[in-house]
Amino acid sequence: MRYEDAPVKNAGGGDLPALGIDIGGTKVAGGVVAPDGTILDTARRATPSRSVEATEDAIAAVVEELAERHGGPLVGVGVGAAGWFDRTGDTVLFSPHLAWRNQALRKELGDRLQRPMWVGNDADAAAWAEYRYGAARGSDLALVITLGTGIGGGIVLDGRLQRGAHGVAGEWGHMRVVPDGRLCACGNRGCWEQYASGTALGQTGREVALSSPAAAADLLDRVGGNPDLITGEVVATAAQAGDPLANELLCDVGAWLGQGIADLAAVLDPEVVVIGGGVSVLGEMVLTPARERLERALPGRGFRPGPRVLAAQLGAQAGLVGAANLVRRAVCEGEA
Amino acid sequence: MRYEDAPVKNAGGGDLPALGIDIGGTKVAGGVVAPDGTILDTARRATPSRSVEATEDAIAAVVEELAERHGGPLVGVGVGAAGWFDRTGDTVLFSPHLAWRNQALRKELGDRLQRPMWVGNDADAAAWAEYRYGAARGSDLALVITLGTGIGGGIVLDGRLQRGAHGVAGEWGHMRVVPDGRLCACGNRGCWEQYASGTALGQTGREVALSSPAAAADLLDRVGGNPDLITGEVVATAAQAGDPLANELLCDVGAWLGQGIADLAAVLDPEVVVIGGGVSVLGEMVLTPARERLERALPGRGFRPGPRVLAAQLGAQAGLVGAANLVRRAVCEGEA
Repeated sequence: MRYEDAPVKNAGGGDLPALGIDIGGTKVAGGVVAPDGTILDTARRATPSRSVEATEDAIAAVVEELAERHGGPLVGVGVGAAGWFDRTGDTVLFSPHLAWRNQALRKELGDRLQRPMWVGNDADAAAWAEYRYGAARGSDLALVITLGTGIGGGIVLDGRLQRGAHGVAGEWGHMRVVPDGRLCACGNRGCWEQYASGTALGQTGREVALSSPAAAADLLDRVGGNPDLITGEVVATAAQAGDPLANELLCDVGAWLGQGIADLAAVLDPEVVVIGGGVSVLGEMVLTPARERLERALPGRGFRPGPRVLAAQLGAQAGLVGAANLVRRAVCEGEA
Repeated sequence: MRYEDAPVKNAGGGDLPALGIDIGGTKVAGGVVAPDGTILDTARRATPSRSVEATEDAIAAVVEELAERHGGPLVGVGVGAAGWFDRTGDTVLFSPHLAWRNQALRKELGDRLQRPMWVGNDADAAAWAEYRYGAARGSDLALVITLGTGIGGGIVLDGRLQRGAHGVAGEWGHMRVVPDGRLCACGNRGCWEQYASGTALGQTGREVALSSPAAAADLLDRVGGNPDLITGEVVATAAQAGDPLANELLCDVGAWLGQGIADLAAVLDPEVVVIGGGVSVLGEMVLTPARERLERALPGRGFRPGPRVLAAQLGAQAGLVGAANLVRRAVCEGEA
């Protein structure tokens, strides 16, 4: 059953806004979101990443600020956070940037805020938003890949988020694509996100600047000559300004993206693959080389269609919009 | 909804046997299968692989032989074949061993045999059998990996085969695991099945016999000293007889299997992974090194459970048993 066709089990709250919160490594961003996905108001706080209590204080402050300005009733609060959640979505198992370890987040926040809650992975929330309101709308099988410092992802199949047997599906940034490859923060080597992400772009930029400083003159100029200061953003800015080397590095990241999409197509055979996250603001500079590689690498090409590769439509707000819709869904339709 | 809970929409045929057919590169194997999965009778023919008509003649001959011996009414005929089917399952897009190219197989066979048909991928049929009667029974998210000359696979999620947007999900044998790696029959390089399959076992055996003939003395003895004659079966037999080198090669295939399972766990987070196919008769000689690698390679290990890795229970009959149950399901419950 598709979301659009789902019977509304409890019509109460159907036309009220919900709060959506997106917790990143540096900030807690919140919004009041109407049923049609429109953001009516926003607020943000810095993320105090080292303490569980301080993180939850920041969430509560954003919720209280938005609720007070809104004044009227709200359906509930949806919270998407970078982290691995268990299958029920009640407990965050592990968060790379935050202090949460096996934290019963939904209960803790619900007790504190005294509001209905949805909590879950931020990439799942963003994927849901793209399915509900964005580039994946109407698709029976959509993968949403968020390209940022790493790679996140979400799977929407037949109108439902698919979170796997233990809640951690869609962590394809940690597929191994190069044996004995680059070291990843997860402890493994050769993970996909070490080759296709903002971090990868910076890493390759630094490597090239060290090995071929003349070719990397434009990049080095942008960081006062210190190759250690070359980040993904520096390379991206240089590419947008027309630096041929930076553009080549971006094509390389795009090709790795396309190769990984080919691998995911071998496993899941999606209808659409939506590319979101910070790196996706580069648009066709990344998507064109990704599609070119996918076309050459798709297993069975010529005998089968491949997925359509589309740019995300909701930008940086996807996480909070998706989280708001997911709490609405939980409250109004009884969907977990 | 789980299969066991599904309402029977049309009780007619519920207690009748169905025919299951499994078409491989060398033989067409058929069986009369009772509702509880018991095989009541079997028949087989050689597969005439180069002609569409001759292949369909062989299928018809097996069906007629079994139907005649059975004598009574049958629910229908399920056919699993090595090949890629479209989403509806009506059309075979491409078959590696057979002459089918965009062939409307379900209609053609149905017209010829005048019986209700299910047609689909052989690994999907085998996966369904393991879910319905075997090692994956009761699992909400099971991946079945068939290790033979290549790697096939099927996904059973919430009691349904998941075939992807275009019908070709589960083709994970063609995930790229080594950039610029071994050439695959699919035209790409570095596919998983080039490292974890019977073919991979033979290939590695031949490579070692050429580079280190002294270490490979046992293997070479088995093939009259000609390294070109070392196949996966030769290595497997030597390993079972206690040859340490052959055992090491088997451990290597097992480790590649475990690595690929870790990659699939990053994408899909399955509850169980069932290993079937010809190579799986080696049992723990392959499964133990696979589990060991999985334990070390699972992304997020320590913070999340991994999948249980189990041996298939239905052996070489899984394909025909699954195909028979799938046509039963299509006829009696209206499931596609």
